[in-house]
Amino acid sequence: MAEVTFDYLNLREVEGGLGKEDLDGIQPRLKEAVDGLLGDPPGFMRLPKTREYAEASSGLADEIRGSGATDFVHVGIGGSALGPMAVHRALNHPYHNALSGRRGPRVHFAENTDPATLSAILDVADPAGTWVNVVTKSGSTAETMANFLVIRGFLVDALGSFGYQGRTIATTDPEKGFLKEISEREDLRVLPIPADVGGRFSVLTPVGLLPAAVTGLDVNALLTGAAQCVDEVREQGAEHPAVVGAAMHYLMDTARGRNVRVMMPYADSLERLAAWFVQLWAESLGKDGKGSTPHGAVGTTDQHSQVQLYMEGPQDKVIEIVEVQEHPRDLPIPKAYDDLEGVGYLGGHTMAELLNVECDATRKALTEAGRPNSTIKLGAVNEENLGYLFQALEIQTAASGALYGVNAFDQPGVEAGKEITYKRMGRPGH
Amino acid sequence: MAEVTFDYLNLREVEGGLGKEDLDGIQPRLKEAVDGLLGDPPGFMRLPKTREYAEASSGLADEIRGSGATDFVHVGIGGSALGPMAVHRALNHPYHNALSGRRGPRVHFAENTDPATLSAILDVADPAGTWVNVVTKSGSTAETMANFLVIRGFLVDALGSFGYQGRTIATTDPEKGFLKEISEREDLRVLPIPADVGGRFSVLTPVGLLPAAVTGLDVNALLTGAAQCVDEVREQGAEHPAVVGAAMHYLMDTARGRNVRVMMPYADSLERLAAWFVQLWAESLGKDGKGSTPHGAVGTTDQHSQVQLYMEGPQDKVIEIVEVQEHPRDLPIPKAYDDLEGVGYLGGHTMAELLNVECDATRKALTEAGRPNSTIKLGAVNEENLGYLFQALEIQTAASGALYGVNAFDQPGVEAGKEITYKRMGRPGH
Repeated sequence: MAEVTFDYLNLREVEGGLGKEDLDGIQPRLKEAVDGLLGDPPGFMRLPKTREYAEASSGLADEIRGSGATDFVHVGIGGSALGPMAVHRALNHPYHNALSGRRGPRVHFAENTDPATLSAILDVADPAGTWVNVVTKSGSTAETMANFLVIRGFLVDALGSFGYQGRTIATTDPEKGFLKEISEREDLRVLPIPADVGGRFSVLTPVGLLPAAVTGLDVNALLTGAAQCVDEVREQGAEHPAVVGAAMHYLMDTARGRNVRVMMPYADSLERLAAWFVQLWAESLGKDGKGSTPHGAVGTTDQHSQVQLYMEGPQDKVIEIVEVQEHPRDLPIPKAYDDLEGVGYLGGHTMAELLNVECDATRKALTEAGRPNSTIKLGAVNEENLGYLFQALEIQTAASGALYGVNAFDQPGVEAGKEITYKRMGRPGH
Repeated sequence: MAEVTFDYLNLREVEGGLGKEDLDGIQPRLKEAVDGLLGDPPGFMRLPKTREYAEASSGLADEIRGSGATDFVHVGIGGSALGPMAVHRALNHPYHNALSGRRGPRVHFAENTDPATLSAILDVADPAGTWVNVVTKSGSTAETMANFLVIRGFLVDALGSFGYQGRTIATTDPEKGFLKEISEREDLRVLPIPADVGGRFSVLTPVGLLPAAVTGLDVNALLTGAAQCVDEVREQGAEHPAVVGAAMHYLMDTARGRNVRVMMPYADSLERLAAWFVQLWAESLGKDGKGSTPHGAVGTTDQHSQVQLYMEGPQDKVIEIVEVQEHPRDLPIPKAYDDLEGVGYLGGHTMAELLNVECDATRKALTEAGRPNSTIKLGAVNEENLGYLFQALEIQTAASGALYGVNAFDQPGVEAGKEITYKRMGRPGH
């Protein structure tokens, strides 16, 4: 069973916090929102019970691992990268690529169209053992296709066309698009991104499942955790804490003027989870002049960067702490310098203990200073809990879309910039 | 000569932008602020013309490099880490640690008290060739001292006390504190953090200079760029664009209700520069209920994550693009698929060209949508320009402190959380 809990007490009990009347007032709309999601579930809510993507991803991952692959280059941006990166960062060794005994090939993400980054990947990747996964639902994302064209040249130069074709995967819409067309011409392997699942909701499709499986992670457990979340939401409806969170954050923004929503995990491994969430929330809700600004932070690190602002700056934020009960590794702090009061007290404790004490201390300090905060607690950082949390935050975001009265599944605001780019780069018809 | 320019046109010419009357109105206070900084310069403004720290750092770096060091562990958090990380990320290879022909030892940052991160460093570091740099001005930062105690144990186990002592550097206040006391007892090497320079303004002290020199970067060029900035501010006073930026951002927050300040470099290598700036701005200004929220983004990546919100969300933000004219490396995009209009147009261009076209396209799209934005342009990402930019943003932040009427050099809001931590961990007297 996934162990993920949500605690909103400190959004209610601080001065200016949300009261019973606020929550009662929004309740009918919240119920309508969740009934809408349950009555006609959006594509992402059907993914946890779909095992065909996990099977296809695991099968291909086994082939990649079995081939003695040295490098796996994941080419994608936005929703095609943030989910896979969040999983990789959360569950693999921080020095995965440098580790001699690593599980599976080195993993590289080619996201931005920054030649320094792609050059660096090509400096390190061994073409003789490199696999490439090109991920774009539309098949025409400029950054992704540019990275792909360069890597394709690199592999064709080293291995010939046949070698390149045997090591390239197209993860794309199975029905249409330029990448689908290319995959047919060149007989590339294909994994599907279902038509009814948008990029930022796609972590439990092959977009997220293949790279996870390539490093030996348990993709079925990701889905099991997510399925538990969907089942609970079906049972509890608007009482489910992820759904309640939609109302809490909507009200904090619209009724309390708190337009910044901070997600602050107390674990380095969850830094990219916050980045994944930033896209999910920003791109789903930021439209029609609405939407709070999601902002990622990491504890304890940002206690020494941003917490001053959270404690004493304007009352314009809500802080969501993500706490981990059992850290995957721990280190005892050796006893030393007993006579130095500013150092000696640390010995005999552990690093994880200090991390969690600081997490609790920050929460208490925020609360005592009247700064609204909530906590998501994970029993551990594992596949099942991560799958649950992905799904819970996706459902919360979709429900928030209904409260804001916006379409959580489109992103019309990015078209203007794309058009200018196409025109400048000479794309026909633009 | 450093090549760094600032362009505020799109903060003025958009609807609701800042007009002549806004800027004229603030001018006397801005002049007073910069006169104050020039009349009695805070410590950080004297650093660029001080060469003793560069000499001490370079000398020690030469010794480290000459010793055949395999690993350099930089232990510090907040201002003791963000500057060094920004420099390392900006100017060294993205895969520095994995690269066989790297300049200098592997570099590790032990920041957070997260046992997963420190365990990973110790998995990779070779104790026989590891040097440790412990950086804390006060000498009692809990996270830093906990990391230090663990690493100290690791080195003493492997090398004995004598071996550990010969490879450990204490970068700290030369006059007082527990780390100074430890360095004297154990005869550690010491580099000074001057008493009148706070952590977040310390990148041009040994805090930033030693790790830069260890990887062979030109620390004198960092100082030269910074000195040029100080000289220009001395000549131009309140007309200097970095100083003008203080007024612009102060007014956008306080007179236009734009409480989120986004810094969005169009180069992966500048991602940590934005993180450095986030601390600088947040911790210096976030007090007395004041201070806008700094937020980091990366172009093009965040075009696929946050730009939807910037384009169509609430009018509560100012976007500052950091553009790089000449990227350090480039890759031609091979011609292929000429008949596929969504792909074929990319061939014949380069990655850097696409990156900069997208930068300009985003700026235009924001401006056309009435979204205020400014641009910092770097001729290239090099030591001199980076030094200039550090200094310019520090001066801008200090001047902003005067406009907000807050002390830009303290951080009283982090004490409450520290006290709770000390009490729980059993520090005497707390």
